[in-house]
Amino acid sequence: MRIALGIEYDGQPWQGWQTQPSGLTVQDTLERALRQFVGDDTCIPTICAGRTDAGVHATAQVVSFDIPDVACNRPAHAWIRGVNAFLPPSIAVRWAQPVASEFNARFSATARRYEYWLYTDPVRLPHWHGRMAWYHEPLDIAGMQAAATSLLGTHDFSAFRSSQCQAKSPVRTLKELRISTFRPEAVGRAQAKDGVQAIRSTQILCFSLQADAFLHHMVRNLVGSLIYVGNGRQSPAWLREVLACRQRCLAAPTFAPDGLYLTQVQYPVAFGLPDAAQSPFRFYPDIQ
Amino acid sequence: MRIALGIEYDGQPWQGWQTQPSGLTVQDTLERALRQFVGDDTCIPTICAGRTDAGVHATAQVVSFDIPDVACNRPAHAWIRGVNAFLPPSIAVRWAQPVASEFNARFSATARRYEYWLYTDPVRLPHWHGRMAWYHEPLDIAGMQAAATSLLGTHDFSAFRSSQCQAKSPVRTLKELRISTFRPEAVGRAQAKDGVQAIRSTQILCFSLQADAFLHHMVRNLVGSLIYVGNGRQSPAWLREVLACRQRCLAAPTFAPDGLYLTQVQYPVAFGLPDAAQSPFRFYPDIQ
Repeated sequence: MRIALGIEYDGQPWQGWQTQPSGLTVQDTLERALRQFVGDDTCIPTICAGRTDAGVHATAQVVSFDIPDVACNRPAHAWIRGVNAFLPPSIAVRWAQPVASEFNARFSATARRYEYWLYTDPVRLPHWHGRMAWYHEPLDIAGMQAAATSLLGTHDFSAFRSSQCQAKSPVRTLKELRISTFRPEAVGRAQAKDGVQAIRSTQILCFSLQADAFLHHMVRNLVGSLIYVGNGRQSPAWLREVLACRQRCLAAPTFAPDGLYLTQVQYPVAFGLPDAAQSPFRFYPDIQ
Repeated sequence: MRIALGIEYDGQPWQGWQTQPSGLTVQDTLERALRQFVGDDTCIPTICAGRTDAGVHATAQVVSFDIPDVACNRPAHAWIRGVNAFLPPSIAVRWAQPVASEFNARFSATARRYEYWLYTDPVRLPHWHGRMAWYHEPLDIAGMQAAATSLLGTHDFSAFRSSQCQAKSPVRTLKELRISTFRPEAVGRAQAKDGVQAIRSTQILCFSLQADAFLHHMVRNLVGSLIYVGNGRQSPAWLREVLACRQRCLAAPTFAPDGLYLTQVQYPVAFGLPDAAQSPFRFYPDIQ
């Protein structure tokens, strides 16, 4: 019997998704918890929708696996509570569902969404350490938005692909690249008397990207290059040229893993899986 | 010469503010960094506005101390960059300012604000671990708001005071107790086909409290008792009775430190210090 799980994790304590000899990955930890829950010594190999790197987070990772017959009569909610009981606080099962035997968390996926969260501030913010990337000065949002449009559509993304990428083709279809900005609320005297900048001039940015699939390091490489535009080092037109040249060395360095979240995976509706985007930080005030 | 600093910290790695023989507190770590920055072996004892407990955070702690003459000619911005260079990622200096010699971060303060952040969800959320408290089912916000009004004003808060509290008087003036709710955005299919609850039914609550000063554990004890009202175990009128009885054993247990943040300290305007409230999670969308 095949099961699909929706998984959320904080990537900071882990050496990425994929199993390693150290055993210190999300996959290793999840498979240990599944084995404990099923109460069988058999290994339960899992397949995931997006193999996140070390330090990268997920709010909506999807995982599929087959279970031995002995575990088949457990209801879906028992998988949520039961597996969570064997997982550390940094990993949680959000939903569980039996799926058709042709379902594969990786190959059945039709689209993935990643969000990259970044704050700009002259001083680092302890509460966002490891959860949002930090840039020390304000960025030109309009310039980055202008540059981002040239990336939309189907392109050879070799310029933004890690040298270790195992994908057969560098061609991907980028359906969306939206950059939103937020500012934390501030109330009270904001400026010290002698003019020393006193409170947060923090700007929070969210890059939201959707594609059929992403190449290795693609989001972090795109964000790094967009920041070269945002800080004025390059013009918006430069990004189009980098894309056209298809050479990794022309683009900016890979940006930090801290702000990256896998927030949505879409599958054909027939599989009946939940696919709501799960933004990690986007709150809106209630009506009440 | 007397200096005031605005300090932000993630309380998770620390055994609270106040110095301990272990050296593993925010105060110990800050005083080590100050000594390194000043380049003098002399101890630099600090005084803070609110001595937070283990696991409790601050976005706007205020600290005062005297520096040896040798360090007097450093400009305020050098204190920010310089001290931050000797601090770990979980602690940061946000502002620095010379202050009048009669200023005392603790005794000059006229008001403190704490925010207590809590999420309700059947499943724990890895991204909020240690940063917001978790409650497993929805809470009756209106009931808690009704109960909260009876706490406003000047009262003997003995019912919500830790047995280890060192304050001379249990009387405090609670100027504000506001409960706000937020829900994370959700887009897409939210429900799995077989009815298993699939996405976050998360509700995020922020308790915002302002008083002249707080007793030891007062916010966590008030929040614990408000939750007894919110989950229906007690009526809103019960809280008024607990307050009037002034007995700690009648109130609810102390709630977790995870969601507690010192977010504002106010001083007489003459000191010229910044005092903007610094909410850790409250973002509003920009107009753009």
